Amino acid sequence: MAEETKPAVPPAENPAADAEAAGPSKKAAKKAEAKAKKEALKAQRAAERIAVASTSNEPEEDPARDFYGPATPALLKSFSADAEDVTLRSISESHIGKKVVIRAWLQNTRMQGAKMAFVELREEGNWAIQGIVAATGDAKEGDSTPVISKRMVKWAGAVNPESFVTVEAKVEKPFAPVKSCRVSDFELHISKIFVISAAPATLGMTLAAANRAVTNFSDEEVKPEEGAQEKEAEGGPPAASMLTHLDNIVMHKRSPVQQAIADIRVEVKHLFRDYLRERGFKEFEPPCLIGAASEGGAGVFSMPYFNQTAYLAQSPQFYKQFEIAGGRKRVFSIGPVFRAENSNTPRHMTEFTGLDLEMEIRKDYHEVLSVLEGVLLHIFRGIEKNCAAEIEVVRSVYPSPEILLPEPGKELRLTFAEAQKLLREEGPEEFRNVRDDEDMSTPQEKALGALIREKYKTDFFAVDKFPDSARPFYAKVDPASDPKEPVTNAFDMFLRGQEILSGGERIADPDELEARIRYKGVDPTSAGIKEYIGVFREAGVPPHGGGGIGLDRVVAWYLALPSVHLAAYYPRTPKRLLP
Amino acid sequence: MAEETKPAVPPAENPAADAEAAGPSKKAAKKAEAKAKKEALKAQRAAERIAVASTSNEPEEDPARDFYGPATPALLKSFSADAEDVTLRSISESHIGKKVVIRAWLQNTRMQGAKMAFVELREEGNWAIQGIVAATGDAKEGDSTPVISKRMVKWAGAVNPESFVTVEAKVEKPFAPVKSCRVSDFELHISKIFVISAAPATLGMTLAAANRAVTNFSDEEVKPEEGAQEKEAEGGPPAASMLTHLDNIVMHKRSPVQQAIADIRVEVKHLFRDYLRERGFKEFEPPCLIGAASEGGAGVFSMPYFNQTAYLAQSPQFYKQFEIAGGRKRVFSIGPVFRAENSNTPRHMTEFTGLDLEMEIRKDYHEVLSVLEGVLLHIFRGIEKNCAAEIEVVRSVYPSPEILLPEPGKELRLTFAEAQKLLREEGPEEFRNVRDDEDMSTPQEKALGALIREKYKTDFFAVDKFPDSARPFYAKVDPASDPKEPVTNAFDMFLRGQEILSGGERIADPDELEARIRYKGVDPTSAGIKEYIGVFREAGVPPHGGGGIGLDRVVAWYLALPSVHLAAYYPRTPKRLLP
Repeated sequence: MAEETKPAVPPAENPAADAEAAGPSKKAAKKAEAKAKKEALKAQRAAERIAVASTSNEPEEDPARDFYGPATPALLKSFSADAEDVTLRSISESHIGKKVVIRAWLQNTRMQGAKMAFVELREEGNWAIQGIVAATGDAKEGDSTPVISKRMVKWAGAVNPESFVTVEAKVEKPFAPVKSCRVSDFELHISKIFVISAAPATLGMTLAAANRAVTNFSDEEVKPEEGAQEKEAEGGPPAASMLTHLDNIVMHKRSPVQQAIADIRVEVKHLFRDYLRERGFKEFEPPCLIGAASEGGAGVFSMPYFNQTAYLAQSPQFYKQFEIAGGRKRVFSIGPVFRAENSNTPRHMTEFTGLDLEMEIRKDYHEVLSVLEGVLLHIFRGIEKNCAAEIEVVRSVYPSPEILLPEPGKELRLTFAEAQKLLREEGPEEFRNVRDDEDMSTPQEKALGALIREKYKTDFFAVDKFPDSARPFYAKVDPASDPKEPVTNAFDMFLRGQEILSGGERIADPDELEARIRYKGVDPTSAGIKEYIGVFREAGVPPHGGGGIGLDRVVAWYLALPSVHLAAYYPRTPKRLLP
Repeated sequence: MAEETKPAVPPAENPAADAEAAGPSKKAAKKAEAKAKKEALKAQRAAERIAVASTSNEPEEDPARDFYGPATPALLKSFSADAEDVTLRSISESHIGKKVVIRAWLQNTRMQGAKMAFVELREEGNWAIQGIVAATGDAKEGDSTPVISKRMVKWAGAVNPESFVTVEAKVEKPFAPVKSCRVSDFELHISKIFVISAAPATLGMTLAAANRAVTNFSDEEVKPEEGAQEKEAEGGPPAASMLTHLDNIVMHKRSPVQQAIADIRVEVKHLFRDYLRERGFKEFEPPCLIGAASEGGAGVFSMPYFNQTAYLAQSPQFYKQFEIAGGRKRVFSIGPVFRAENSNTPRHMTEFTGLDLEMEIRKDYHEVLSVLEGVLLHIFRGIEKNCAAEIEVVRSVYPSPEILLPEPGKELRLTFAEAQKLLREEGPEEFRNVRDDEDMSTPQEKALGALIREKYKTDFFAVDKFPDSARPFYAKVDPASDPKEPVTNAFDMFLRGQEILSGGERIADPDELEARIRYKGVDPTSAGIKEYIGVFREAGVPPHGGGGIGLDRVVAWYLALPSVHLAAYYPRTPKRLLP
């Protein structure tokens, strides 16, 4: 039956205008594009399909009448006693010739003549299988083979895609692997099919459309790109904007590419946590609600809190340090952090997930740098190994060059001054005059990443000893550096030319900290700062350092996604808090 | 040397008034108690101790001058090349007679005559060891034994407790186990001791005070209880209020009891996550910032968000369901949730950590109940096994009866009606008239817990089939229940008579959901609700259910702590956002 394979969802050929579709009013102008697409698809579906409702009222003489239709408690109990309840991913050679019961999304159907329907069934993680509903003759006395009527075949072929169904079927070997399905070595010969939860006749976004590269990440709906028509003509449904994806969050999430990204994200967290636990790090939960906008003040959300004002934490920085002061050797946290910045770019969100750690320094802060390098490389190598299939799925939609990682023990570390020198001497013309005492810009970072990939064959590296001017008040100044151009024991790490981590040694001595806070122009008696310094005065605090990683960015830049919004489950932007 | 063991910190005998201490002004009235204690201790310390600074300016003729004092980079490099860098918990028989280097908090010192000082060193997790600094004779030519002068002994005996120090020492076997220290089978014969980070001469709260049961959880500072003086007279330092603990967060966290609670909390999270991962659950991060106060409206924090209003999520309920709709079979999340309730009780916080899960239901919602029972029992049995030492430490401060758990396979489940019947028939007089169609009150829950412990010998049980009136709009009504007194497929679980979990089946059908929302008096077109229903209209969603556990409460009630605030790292209450 392998020759029957085909794309998951048929291409949207001949989209026709729907008589019901109202022209875009002034108020609805923003959503015009999405609506037009919906209506076109609706018309197409309406022409192709027969409503489930009408066919379920078949005359009673259908001998297969109890083998299909909307699920009822009685029908769900009618499965054969010897049918094993299985998941698609668990089907193996041992199931061949045996009856199974499956619950899955029906992602596609196709009739072949009047006697055979092909249905594709899918479960989590893009595990899909081909099923066949083929009409049999009438039942003969003593024959236990279930009857499958032409009416049942027709009904099965007309189930709305993305309905949730359950089937009883016999597992068989196809003549050749079913290329369109991840479960390619088996197919299901279906004898019963019930719809548990019906999808509408028209989906807001088809699975195939949801699986195309997002075209536009602006918070404003815009007109289709030039060339969108051509793309459509090339085959496949039109791609959609991020807003359309968010307005159709269910289909967005069901798309193979988003399932793969989500699986990689889960694995990144897991690898981060496991690596640190094995090295004696203890997890803790920093608070989100804090009493003072202590880290900067700009870009912080604030809200009424009974008789005072509460702020949302921009990072767990202070609390990681409090854990060290409070007797922990090594801690980490995974949790939300918030930035009230009105930045409407594919790199920014107002809420994201921070992976943070802090640790006692025994001899030198490079211990911290080593742990952070170690955990990041563990993550990169881990997903390369554990998520190879998922990475392939993502690449099929968002192509990216192979990532270059350093050999173990050959990690690349440059000082900030070395990085700037490289940019001056070998970088683009515009960076001929970059200075050692000024922070890098985003274009500088990208140029540096490209230079280093070329020269050192790595997409991952650390830049150490950032200038004093580029670091916050808690960063420890390198006591050995030139007091006229002080540098800090602080570093960033980069992936594909984008920053994914900031870290370094912190100041543990309260007097040094207070002096540094004054030097940075912050009032050490201000709310939050006073209490922060106070913690280091309570009792002796060991030297310590740490770093913070943006989970969303690690996933996005590792996969070279066009926007960090694709790596988040529910991206929060200045204009969007839904769904 | 075992006879030298003694309590971690000497009792605060003869507290004397400090000439510097100002009497409490009207403004500072609230902090008067704490301040008085501080000052008393300060005076005591001042009398007992010699400042580190003055002793470090010893005349140069001290032959041991390079073996003690404030740490400098040069001194830290002076450790013997053959001394192994170890942690206290890793010290074993194989170290006996060998040189080691330790970094730890000095928690206590005591002089014995002028020639010997005992110092207790502690690291994370209350691992403490006894160290000895004993004066040697003067160095003889050719003798490689390091010289320890009487000045060095005196200095070591005067280091402020809770300073962070590093020592070089030889590991020896004590004559008898050192009962006061967790590392009781070894002691350290110290040859070098340097202070890396000095504690102040007076601690805001001593370690011993921090390790006593918290006396008062009110957000208002109150006068010391009657009898506080007596307790002090009985031995040991005075206990402190929760406010004093929070004002001295470093010492609060360093106390053995809080270290033990924190370790148990870490383990609970780990057990929760591991159990679910093994059963195919995928972790995800629900957003904290949401666009509508969709779950109720009361008790929700709101804030300006660019041109709109943002709210803080009261639970991940909607987003867990979106994950199921979006193609996941089973998900879980661990993260902060927020309640803007002005409840100033030891049971309430405005921010806490939710352990949540949601899963597809294959046949019956009791699948969900079984998973939740399973994960909770896995947690309870896991911490019993993995945290036995920590539980003992907690019990030594907060005594609690042994927890009674059901045998595997004998978990207790009652229906709500059965639980109410039990209360009516066998409970206290005041519950003779409890009704099957009204939710339980907290006193009812406690009475039920006591009855069930007595009758069924378990502190953990589930109450299923809550009445319709006691459940939110997303709870699925049991279709088999009496339409006049409908009950839901929803349940709570209890530990020691307190609710720790709510769960049940959700409505997956959008029409049923909309009808139910109307029936509950909520407008289905209101912000947030409209989008919520819309998700179920996008495509077919399988039957599903789940539950939410309060991490802080599980830890607190398992350990029978007097307040959930003790189980949180940084408890947030209506009056307190610091530290």
